[in-house]
Amino acid sequence: MALSAQVEVDLGSRSYPIYIGQALLSGGELRNLLKAHVRGKQAVIVSNETVNTLYGDAVREALSECEVDTFLMPDGEAHKTLEVFGLVIDFLIENRHNRTSCIIALGGGVVGDLAGFSAAAYQRGIDFVQIPTTLLAQVDSSVGGKTAVNHPGGKNMVGAFYQPNCVVIDTDVLTSLPAREFSAGLAEVVKYGVIADPDLFAWLEANADAIMEKDARALTHIIKRSCEIKADVVAQDERESGIRAILNFGHTFGHAIENLSGYGTWLHGEAVAVGMAMAADFSEKLNLLAQGSAARVVDLLKRFDLPTSLSESVAPEDMIRAMGMDKKVSDGQLRFVVARSIGAVEVTGDYRHEVLAEVLSDWCRP
Amino acid sequence: MALSAQVEVDLGSRSYPIYIGQALLSGGELRNLLKAHVRGKQAVIVSNETVNTLYGDAVREALSECEVDTFLMPDGEAHKTLEVFGLVIDFLIENRHNRTSCIIALGGGVVGDLAGFSAAAYQRGIDFVQIPTTLLAQVDSSVGGKTAVNHPGGKNMVGAFYQPNCVVIDTDVLTSLPAREFSAGLAEVVKYGVIADPDLFAWLEANADAIMEKDARALTHIIKRSCEIKADVVAQDERESGIRAILNFGHTFGHAIENLSGYGTWLHGEAVAVGMAMAADFSEKLNLLAQGSAARVVDLLKRFDLPTSLSESVAPEDMIRAMGMDKKVSDGQLRFVVARSIGAVEVTGDYRHEVLAEVLSDWCRP
Repeated sequence: MALSAQVEVDLGSRSYPIYIGQALLSGGELRNLLKAHVRGKQAVIVSNETVNTLYGDAVREALSECEVDTFLMPDGEAHKTLEVFGLVIDFLIENRHNRTSCIIALGGGVVGDLAGFSAAAYQRGIDFVQIPTTLLAQVDSSVGGKTAVNHPGGKNMVGAFYQPNCVVIDTDVLTSLPAREFSAGLAEVVKYGVIADPDLFAWLEANADAIMEKDARALTHIIKRSCEIKADVVAQDERESGIRAILNFGHTFGHAIENLSGYGTWLHGEAVAVGMAMAADFSEKLNLLAQGSAARVVDLLKRFDLPTSLSESVAPEDMIRAMGMDKKVSDGQLRFVVARSIGAVEVTGDYRHEVLAEVLSDWCRP
Repeated sequence: MALSAQVEVDLGSRSYPIYIGQALLSGGELRNLLKAHVRGKQAVIVSNETVNTLYGDAVREALSECEVDTFLMPDGEAHKTLEVFGLVIDFLIENRHNRTSCIIALGGGVVGDLAGFSAAAYQRGIDFVQIPTTLLAQVDSSVGGKTAVNHPGGKNMVGAFYQPNCVVIDTDVLTSLPAREFSAGLAEVVKYGVIADPDLFAWLEANADAIMEKDARALTHIIKRSCEIKADVVAQDERESGIRAILNFGHTFGHAIENLSGYGTWLHGEAVAVGMAMAADFSEKLNLLAQGSAARVVDLLKRFDLPTSLSESVAPEDMIRAMGMDKKVSDGQLRFVVARSIGAVEVTGDYRHEVLAEVLSDWCRP
């Protein structure tokens, strides 16, 4: 099958292609793609032990004309910190990487976010290529240039908008992905259906089994469509000053859930799944979304083995507090992305607080 | 005199104005300027003890409609580090600054660079206003959006290209500036003459006394002209991939001098003054620059009380090594900005190494 789809992210001088296909890493394709996008003679692969063991050699082989160093970071969101960012910078300097060097992020969202911020900040910005190895990273982090590290005070508090030179997505890597992480990625795919594409949502409902069986054509379709939708939104609003906020559907609740339970308890996509179920219910209770639509969202999430309720009770006031530092706060007003239908959402700060209180009351004590 | 000059830095959607005048801080002008450029209701002044004591209250007064916090950092290049950057981020989070907050850099280049990188990275970028209080910061850091912190392995190794909302330059603040720092700023003004404007260079020769007496009209003229020249170069090459490198005239040698002597021994402008004297001599020895031109550069630097030779011997090989990690290195080739005349320079990697060796031999043992 090899290279079978390409999505252009249209951002003027910062535009870049996303290559999607089967066996892009194991075939000879990667060498050509990297040759076209790695401009200098030095490269650093940023990865973790697990992913490097599986795919590191393929990438080093494809980069055989460069001087390549490999930086391995510990796995997990807990290591997406300013400290590890500092270690990457130390590593780049120790190995005398100059301004024409290229950072290759080989891994999931944690690796991509940290490697991306390192590329953005090292000598004020060097080349950057993403090879995302989780479904979540393929459909979310690979489009839009958001890079960041966490702070004890909140997720993604320090970072940059920084676009890669290209993104290479090999659907084969998903076969080695743990089931829980695969499902977590599907949560974001469901999100794209809800916010922008009723056809995609219906397609997911009709093809859920093929997707769960990791059928390559089904995966290519949903990854391509997800990247297209996100690319379209990001092209309209690169720096998240307006419409891009719709990508946060389910994330205001989701981030609060992650915050309250401590990073690492829930996978991001799992917290977002619960957050989307809550946001859909909130939308129905605000009489914006037709009754029954929230149930469709919940049903689809369940078919993808995703959680649709909290596993432990939390105090609604803790949830409100946890949402207080969320980035949807604009001058003190807490704003939500709500659905008007499956396929159309809007950002609003105009809602009755009793309705929010009712949603929190219903969901916080499952 | 009040607001008497304005320079537009033309960078498309990232364009911004530089306001230049006398008594902008002490008069009522600052309030109006900030009202036009600070969009949110929160602001953080980043400054140091000395500058905050002199001008902090004026800025807080002008921001009386905002919730304002003040972060004071220690003075000096040695504190332009990832660690202090992390403290600014902690401070922003502790004080619950959101994405609409604005960082006001009140100080010299160290404050501007650190505050600017903090603004660039906090929540992936918040508003930023610069009020430079040294001549160097006014004519150099206020144009071009370069922000960064140092690393033990090199200056400005971690940073971002990040444009401010506006820059406010009050010539009055230069009256409180120590003589050595004032001279250091003049080194960059001389540089603008050498790289782009023979008329400015001649004007500096003719008006050196008025400048050294801090005549407000003379200061406004040289600051405005310096900002215009830099704005013109930056508009052509925001991310320093080409012509912007000419702004580094004297800086390849200068950075090496700073590196070898340890940050803090030389002021940046002093090291650049010596570096420019070396670069002019190098240009003459390469038969690019007419004989006698280097002497004009040296004479003008001396009238501004600037050093034009090393104070202690260094080994030429140490100098070469110190230049090795400099950012003018492109794939291993060391490039220099050389002068073809007073007012025109070029970047070259095409020179005989014997000539460089001769320059180093002449200058490294004063």
